[in-house]
Amino acid sequence: MKKIGILGGGVWGSALAKILNKNNVVLYARDQKIVKSINNFKINPNLKYATFNDNVTATTNLSDLKDCEYLIIALPTKEIREVIKSLGKISTNQHIIIGSKGIDIKSKMFPYDIVKTILNTDNISILSGPCFSIEVAQNLPTAVTLATNNINMFNEINLLFSNKNFRLYFSDDITGCQLGGALKNIYAIAVGITIGLNLGENAKSALISRSFAEIIKFANLMNAKSQTIFGLSGLGDLILTCNSLKSRNTSFGQFIGSHQKIDISGYLKTLETTEGYYTVKAVHEISLEKNISMPIAEAIYNILYNSSSITDEINTLLNRPATKEFID
Amino acid sequence: MKKIGILGGGVWGSALAKILNKNNVVLYARDQKIVKSINNFKINPNLKYATFNDNVTATTNLSDLKDCEYLIIALPTKEIREVIKSLGKISTNQHIIIGSKGIDIKSKMFPYDIVKTILNTDNISILSGPCFSIEVAQNLPTAVTLATNNINMFNEINLLFSNKNFRLYFSDDITGCQLGGALKNIYAIAVGITIGLNLGENAKSALISRSFAEIIKFANLMNAKSQTIFGLSGLGDLILTCNSLKSRNTSFGQFIGSHQKIDISGYLKTLETTEGYYTVKAVHEISLEKNISMPIAEAIYNILYNSSSITDEINTLLNRPATKEFID
Repeated sequence: MKKIGILGGGVWGSALAKILNKNNVVLYARDQKIVKSINNFKINPNLKYATFNDNVTATTNLSDLKDCEYLIIALPTKEIREVIKSLGKISTNQHIIIGSKGIDIKSKMFPYDIVKTILNTDNISILSGPCFSIEVAQNLPTAVTLATNNINMFNEINLLFSNKNFRLYFSDDITGCQLGGALKNIYAIAVGITIGLNLGENAKSALISRSFAEIIKFANLMNAKSQTIFGLSGLGDLILTCNSLKSRNTSFGQFIGSHQKIDISGYLKTLETTEGYYTVKAVHEISLEKNISMPIAEAIYNILYNSSSITDEINTLLNRPATKEFID
Repeated sequence: MKKIGILGGGVWGSALAKILNKNNVVLYARDQKIVKSINNFKINPNLKYATFNDNVTATTNLSDLKDCEYLIIALPTKEIREVIKSLGKISTNQHIIIGSKGIDIKSKMFPYDIVKTILNTDNISILSGPCFSIEVAQNLPTAVTLATNNINMFNEINLLFSNKNFRLYFSDDITGCQLGGALKNIYAIAVGITIGLNLGENAKSALISRSFAEIIKFANLMNAKSQTIFGLSGLGDLILTCNSLKSRNTSFGQFIGSHQKIDISGYLKTLETTEGYYTVKAVHEISLEKNISMPIAEAIYNILYNSSSITDEINTLLNRPATKEFID
C-alpha cells in the first residue's frame, strides 16, 4: 500500500482521494470542518455522492504529508507557492502530481515551474483533462492526460490509479498539458457571458471554436505541441468546461452576463476560486509582452479588470467584419 | 430585389428563406401542406417562432425556380441528385449555394461534386457552420463559413444576406468546408449514445475531442486545410451538434443508446433525415479504400449496419489501453 498525500480539500482533491482509496491517502485541508467531516463521517460535504473508506484520512497539519511517496497538488493555483514553501524540503524520491490548473498571476508561471523552482526537483507530472470532480467521484468514465518526462513514472502512476473508469493517457508535453487547462477557464467565462445574455447555442459554438484557435495561437508561442492542444487536456477540457454550468468559470460568466452592473471582485469573494479571473490577467500580460492578439481573452480582461461594458465587448467579438475566418 | 430559389422545405431551407426575405424568395418543397402553409399563412409549421413576409412564396413546381439568380440547396444529401436532375439545365450565370451537409452514400461524393457533375458549372459556394435553424429564424447571432473559389462571389452573397446577426466568413476551401458538416453527424450519433447510456459529461467531452482528431485525420486524407477544420464549419459545428439534443443525430444516438434492442432502420423511417446514418456508410467505405483507422466512425457503422452491441462498441472506445493519447 502506497502512501499518497493530497494537498487541497476542495472537490477535486476529494474526488482524487476517493478513486485512490486502495492506497493510504492523507488529504491536507486548511478548513477544520472539512478535515473533521472526512475523519469522523468519511464525507466531504461539498462533494456529493461520495463516501471515503478507512484508507482516507484528512489533516490540517502539512507535516503529516512529509513521508508520502506521491504528493498530489489540487490547490487553487494562487495558493501553491505558499503551501509548497510551508511544506519545505521533500525527498527527491517523492513524486509530485500536479492537478491544479492555472497560471500564477504574479510570476506568470505555470504550476510546474512554481513547484520545480521551490523544491528543486523535476520528479513532477501533470494530470489534466476533461473531468468534473463529481463525475470522477461517481466513478463515471473519465479520460485524462498525464504528462511526464519519464514514461516509467507514467506506468507507475497508472498502476496507482488502476481504475478502468479513470484512464490516463501518456504525454511528454509538460507545457502543453498545463496550457489547455489554464486557458479554458478564460473562455468558459466568455461562453458563460453569452449564456447569461441568452445569445443562443449558435453564438456559443462559434465562440468556442474561435477560443480554440486563440489557445492554439498561444500554445505555438509557448512551444507546446499542437497535438496536446487537440487532445484531452486541451480541446477536451475546453468543450467540457464551456458546455456546462457545473463549471465555476462558466457559471460565473453566466452570472455577470445576466446581471450586468455588479461588483465583480466583491461577487468573486463569495465563490470558490474562479481560476479564469486570475489566468486572464496573466495571459493579458503575456500577450502584451509577446505582442500577440487574443481578442477573446482581451475582452474578458477588459470586462473583469477595466469595467468595460459586457454587451459592448461581446458585440465587438461577434461582429467582426465579414472577411476571412482566420484573420490574425 | 434579387430572386432567390431555395430547394428544400425543411427547417433549414425555411430559416434561410426567413433571413433572406428582403429579396424575392421562392421555396421549393415536395410537401403540399408545407407549400400551402407558407403561401396561405406565411409559416412553416415545423419552424417555430418564424413568420415570413410577402416576399417569400413556396411552390411544388421546380420550374418556378428556373430564373432565380441564386439557388440555395437545402435538401437532404440523398435527394440532391434527383432534384437537380429534374431541375435540368440552368444558366451559368446562376449561382448555386449549397447548404446541405453529407456525403452521397452511392457515389461517395460531397454535394459540391454531385451538383458540379450534373450541371457542369463551378459557380457554386458552400455555406456551412454551427447553426441551428430555429436560432437563425429567431435572428440570434450566428457565424458561418461561406466557401467559394471566387472572392467577388463571396462579397455578392454577403450583401445578399446583409444581416448583422447572420455573419459569413470567407474560405476558399470547398472540400474542407463540406467535410466538417458531413462528418460531425457521425460523431453526434456516438455522443448521443453516451448520453443515452448516462455516461456523463467527462466521457462525452473525451469522445468529442477524439472525434475531432478523427475528423482531422480524414481531412488530411482529403487534402482539406486544417485551418478550415479548426473553424466554424469544422470544430464549431461539431461542438454545436454534439452538445445539444436539438440535433437530430445526437437525439437519434440518445434514443438508440437508451433503448438498446430496437429496429434501427424502422425507427429511422419515423424521423426526418438523419444524415449521420448515411454519412457513416460512405465514410466506412472510404476509410477501407484508403486504409485509415477511424475507430469511432467504425463503431457507429458496426452499431448501425452490423447489429453490433451498443455497450460493447462504446466500452471498446472508452477503454482503449492506457498509452499515448494519439496512438493512430
